[in-house]
Parts: sequence; C-alpha cells; structure tokens
Amino acid sequence: MRILQIKENVVSIASEIQNAYIDFSNMTVSIVAVVTDVIKEGKPVVGYGFHSNGRYAQSGLLRDRFLPRLIEAKPEQLLDEQRDNLDPFKIWNILMTNEKPGGHGERSVAVGVLDMAVWDAVAKIEEKPLYRLLAERFNQEQPEEEVFVYAAGGYYYPGKGTDALVREMRGYLEDGYNVVKMKIGAATLSEDMKRIEAVLKELANYFAAGDSPGGHLAVDANGRFDLNTALAYARELQPLNLFWYEEAGDPLDYHLQSELAAAYDNPFATGENLFSHQDVANLLRYGGLRPEQDYLQMDPALAYGLVEYLRMLEILEQFNWSPGRCIPHGGHQFALHLAAGLGLGGNESYPGVFQPFGGFADATPVHDGMIRLTDYPGVGFEAKADLINLFHKHFQ
Amino acid sequence: MRILQIKENVVSIASEIQNAYIDFSNMTVSIVAVVTDVIKEGKPVVGYGFHSNGRYAQSGLLRDRFLPRLIEAKPEQLLDEQRDNLDPFKIWNILMTNEKPGGHGERSVAVGVLDMAVWDAVAKIEEKPLYRLLAERFNQEQPEEEVFVYAAGGYYYPGKGTDALVREMRGYLEDGYNVVKMKIGAATLSEDMKRIEAVLKELANYFAAGDSPGGHLAVDANGRFDLNTALAYARELQPLNLFWYEEAGDPLDYHLQSELAAAYDNPFATGENLFSHQDVANLLRYGGLRPEQDYLQMDPALAYGLVEYLRMLEILEQFNWSPGRCIPHGGHQFALHLAAGLGLGGNESYPGVFQPFGGFADATPVHDGMIRLTDYPGVGFEAKADLINLFHKHFQ
Repeated sequence: MRILQIKENVVSIASEIQNAYIDFSNMTVSIVAVVTDVIKEGKPVVGYGFHSNGRYAQSGLLRDRFLPRLIEAKPEQLLDEQRDNLDPFKIWNILMTNEKPGGHGERSVAVGVLDMAVWDAVAKIEEKPLYRLLAERFNQEQPEEEVFVYAAGGYYYPGKGTDALVREMRGYLEDGYNVVKMKIGAATLSEDMKRIEAVLKELANYFAAGDSPGGHLAVDANGRFDLNTALAYARELQPLNLFWYEEAGDPLDYHLQSELAAAYDNPFATGENLFSHQDVANLLRYGGLRPEQDYLQMDPALAYGLVEYLRMLEILEQFNWSPGRCIPHGGHQFALHLAAGLGLGGNESYPGVFQPFGGFADATPVHDGMIRLTDYPGVGFEAKADLINLFHKHFQ
Repeated sequence: MRILQIKENVVSIASEIQNAYIDFSNMTVSIVAVVTDVIKEGKPVVGYGFHSNGRYAQSGLLRDRFLPRLIEAKPEQLLDEQRDNLDPFKIWNILMTNEKPGGHGERSVAVGVLDMAVWDAVAKIEEKPLYRLLAERFNQEQPEEEVFVYAAGGYYYPGKGTDALVREMRGYLEDGYNVVKMKIGAATLSEDMKRIEAVLKELANYFAAGDSPGGHLAVDANGRFDLNTALAYARELQPLNLFWYEEAGDPLDYHLQSELAAAYDNPFATGENLFSHQDVANLLRYGGLRPEQDYLQMDPALAYGLVEYLRMLEILEQFNWSPGRCIPHGGHQFALHLAAGLGLGGNESYPGVFQPFGGFADATPVHDGMIRLTDYPGVGFEAKADLINLFHKHFQ
C-alpha cells in the first residue's frame, strides 16, 4: 500500500474578532488530503488534515520542504508492516529529515496538518474511529465515549459592548455548555473587571443558588501581560474562584508564570503556544504550575501533530502530571479524539467561530458540557457536513 | 521617502557537508532587495538581505504574510522622521502585526532577512558603514575596526577521513585564523576523540611550544547529545582545555546544559538555535552558563534581525552578561557589523562553505585571527564581488 498523492490548499477564516494580542482579519488555514491506494467501499481512502486558528496557513513550508520529502520517500519507508497500514511515526521522521533542533514554530504547524491527515487515513484503513485506535494502541484504559468541552468565546470586536458579551455567554449555556471562556487584556483592568462581573452575574442567575458562578467562567489574556499587570489581575480575580486564568504572560516566560503561581491559588491554564515536547518540559520544570489543579493546553494540530503530542504526554509522566490535566487548544474533532482516546481532561470548543474547522459532528450537540464521539472511521470529518463539503470542494 | 518595491528570491546553497544533525543536500537561502526612492550617486538606494545557513528559504512566509504587511503599510508608518530615513523598529512592528507570541521559528528567519535589508538601506541612506551607525546609536564606545573571527569547518562528508580533516584545519591556520572549529557527534566518542587528537597534534606543531593547542580548537555537537552522552564527551574533553564545547544537547534543554556545566569547567558556547529574546532569557536563567567564560551564539539573521538582537542584549544586561560574550553564528558580514558596532566578542567565519553568503569583504583577508571592517556604506555587500553579483543577477 502507498500514498498516491497529497493535495494542499489554503482557506480563509478571516473574521472581525480580536484577542489581547492579534486580530483575525487575515487568518488562514492550510488543508491537505492524503490519497492512498487502499480501497474501502469502492473508493480510495483519503485522510484529511487542517490546523487550528491563530498561526496562518503553511503552504510555503508544505510545498518547499514537507510534501517533497514525503513524495520522494520510498513507499516501504512509510509502512507499518505489522498492521499493513501507514506508520505515522516513520512518516514523521521522514518529514523532519534534515531539520535542525530548536526553533519550533510554523514548521510545527505544517507537520501538524500532515500528521492529522495521516492519522485520519490510518484509522480509516483500520475501519475504526481514531479515538478507539488510540485507546487500543496507547492507553490501557477503555476510551471515553464523551468528552468535557467548554465554550471559548468572549472575543473583543469593534462595537461589542458588555451586553453583547453577556448575551453571547448566555447563549453558550443555553446550547449546553457548563463552562464559558472570555478574553481579557485588550481593555483596562477596571473595564475587564466590569465585563467579568457582568458575566458572573448572568452565570449566577443561570445556575442554582450555592453553585459558585466563578467555577463556570475561564478568562484568557493571550499572553499579553507583563508580571506586574498579571499580578494586578490575579489580585482582582483571586476572590472570584474562576475555572481558570489563562496565559497571563508571554508563553515562554516561565519565570513570570512561576511568580504568578506564588501569588494566585486558583487554577491556571497555559501551553497553547508551546509547540514541542522540549518547551513543555521547560514549562513543567520552571513554570511553577501545580499538577493537582492547573491545565495544559498544547494543541496537536499546531505542534507537530499527534506523534509529538505522545512525546509531550511522556514528559508529563516524567513530571508526575496526569494526561487528565490536558485540555487542548483548537476546538476541533482531532483533539476531541485525542481527549477520548488518551484520557485527556477535555477539549476546547468555539461555538460559531473558525468555521467550518471549529466544532464537532453534526449529530452530537453539546449536552451538559459534554460531546459524544461518533462511530465514523478516522477523525469523522465525514460526520460534519460543512467541513467534509469544504474538503470535497477543494480536493475533488 | 518611501520603499518603492521589495523583491524576493531563493538561492541554493546545497552541499555534501553534514553535521551531527542534518545534511545540507537541499539547503536554500532567501534573498531580498528593498528598493527605496532615495537617490545616491544617481541610483536608488537598495538594501539587500539574506539569512544564515541551516533553516531553509522562507519564500512562503515572505509572500503570504510579511511582504504584504510592509507593502500595505502607509509610507509614513515606516519613517524615522527625525533622521529622514526608514525606521527599522517601526518596520519590525508592522511586520509582526497580528503574529501571536511564542513559536519562534521560520517566521524569525523571514523577518531576519527583511531586517537585514532595511538596516543595509538605512546605513546607505546615512552614507556610512552599518557598524559605525550602530556604535553611534546604541553604543557609547567607539566601534571596533577589526573583529575576532574563528574558522568553522570540520564537517563530516562522505569519504572524508582524518587526514583530510587535519589538512582542512591546517589550511585555516595558514589562511590567518588562530581558532578553528570542527564538528563532533556524527561518529562514536572514540572515533571523534581520534579526530580531535589528530587536529590537536597538528595545532601543537603549528603554534609555539608552550601554547596550549586546545585553546585553538572548538568542537560543535549541533545539539545531538542526550545528557549521558554529553557528559561522556565532557569527561574526555575536559583535560584538553578546548576553546569551547558547543551545543552539546538540544538547544532548548536548559536542564541538560545546567547539569553539564556542573561537570565541565571549560567554556561552553550555545544559542544559535534560540530565535527570540524570551528564549535567551530562559537560557541565561536556567542553563547554568557562566558569564565570565561561556559564549552566546544567537544569530540575528535567523532570529528576527537586529531589532530583536538589541532586545537580546538588554536581556544579557539584566543577567549581568557582557555583549563581549556574544560570538554570533552565521559567518556573514551583517553579524560582523553587529560585532564591531555593538562590542560583541567576535564572529563566526565559514571559509569556503555557504558561498557566496559566507565570508567578508574581498579586500579584508583574515589576519592573526581578525577581520577588518571596510568603509563601504551599509553592510558592504558591494565589497564582496560574488555576493553583490548574485544580488544583481537576481534583482536587476
């Protein structure tokens, strides 16, 4: 068996939304299709891949380096002979041939897109959903059949006031989410606290008396703050007992994270901008995070794919962190399968933004904060009409 | 004044050489030309840029993101009004608009190429060599008129034996270098020690009796070793009193570097694969390096350019490191100007490889381990015939 062809294209996910660091007015995503010579139900098995929002399409790297390496490899170099399937680990090594160590950005996205498509094909060839394949291969436990998701929104955009923010958050609750997330850091501290308090008031109205509204709200600074600003926010946020306080400072500033941890007792979340297991090791070693309460958000689609994500989980084990502390960034089906198959703690969800890449199978609405997996083979893109239609449009 | 046009192209620097991590059989470099409307001697001022070897051309990122941002900016957004010149800092901010924090690879190269061309144009517009402009703007001291360089070679390539290695090193000494560097880590420890001992014997023959040959030899593992291997090499290298032991482990493994520093008393060098000031801060905070003897090799052309390099120097100051501890990777004229203008400790040189990007002005051969700067305005590409001819060929 062999890869017959790899197709690649770019799709816009431009929108008016802004976080504390960037706007998404020119945001793009790379998509790929890995066409194999394996025939199922009369058609060749095709694996699809894309990457999460925030880091732009990677056509140049795909065309100049990564696709040629894969296409020039001999078919047997890519094979899992025992299983008569593609071998994602061998493929990863071919992709990363003659790449220097360090400097983990951009190429980590290009490799992540291809890795997703390869795993989709591998699970389709085994005729099972990816999460079951992952549980069988990498996890002694049974896979989870449903996964915790939270609604990530609360972006800034031109003209959006607090009322619109509160309505947006209320909508997520009505859609079945139990935890909602909003952006902070593009306004002043006092303005942000007013936004947060308005949302908490709505949460208090929605949930039963005695259920702390802070436990249903996460806030995300997208790496904007210096230490003093991060500490000033921490002082105001501490009594609110929030679900988490995300990415206060620069993602590589482990010292800031550690200082902040000494001043804030409630959970942090960070890691979406760490794209290698080496960076994750540094976060765990130096960042002062607490394995009993904090969350790690590394995103396989931005960070060299599932092959590298498994290395990250090995790092977690070395530092006595459970995979259950991981809730990946990205809001897509691929990370949902990792969560269900590898015992992660949950997954991000972006109701209504970054479409059609954000979101899950059409037939599995969120219910009581959980999303069910489906029986579709592979990642199940075929169970999400707008997404599979996009792949078909670009690749047929 | 304004930028009229930015041209971009890709040049192969493929060769048979190998280090412990990669071969250079498909290595490429991006080149750019920033054409301004400033006329000097009857012609428009054009700034040229390229990047160092090892990280491949960045056409995709340049065309998709960085060039459009610069071209779409209003001319006044790029101006240093006080000096009636381009402002490299404003240009850098335009380039990095809507780029998320973290993930410093690839885009750091694309920005580095453009930053080099901008500084070349800025110094040409001021009609002075870049090193003088840098000393005036950023350094209270007078610039150095000559800079320490060492000969970086000793690559592995197919069929190359120890005799050829020794001849190569001898050639560098005869060309005027006092310090030579060879690769290690692609052979076994015992094979590498034989290679090293053969070179040391030649160095002992060349230099005066009583002059320790180890002080003229650096070795470079290119990030290949795990901690145990790095320690095993350290034990063998320690009594040789080498000039430095470079990049033993993964460039982001600060813990390995720190453990190694506890076991090896002689100088280390590292940093060529750290592409942001945040990564440099982590190295200095966690890496166990010693400011009185170790060397930092960050490469402005791979790491967001001179604008980011100045931030790295601020980090050094915070950690009480002198700029004199910096000897950049890259072996090119641009880093030579930084060394002379900002008081760095020296610069890499690649005699005979990575041509025509490696090397310095034609009229300034190395003498007693030093290279003189020239009076050509800008970086002085015009003083290196093969390089300026390449730029002219691609951009006229």
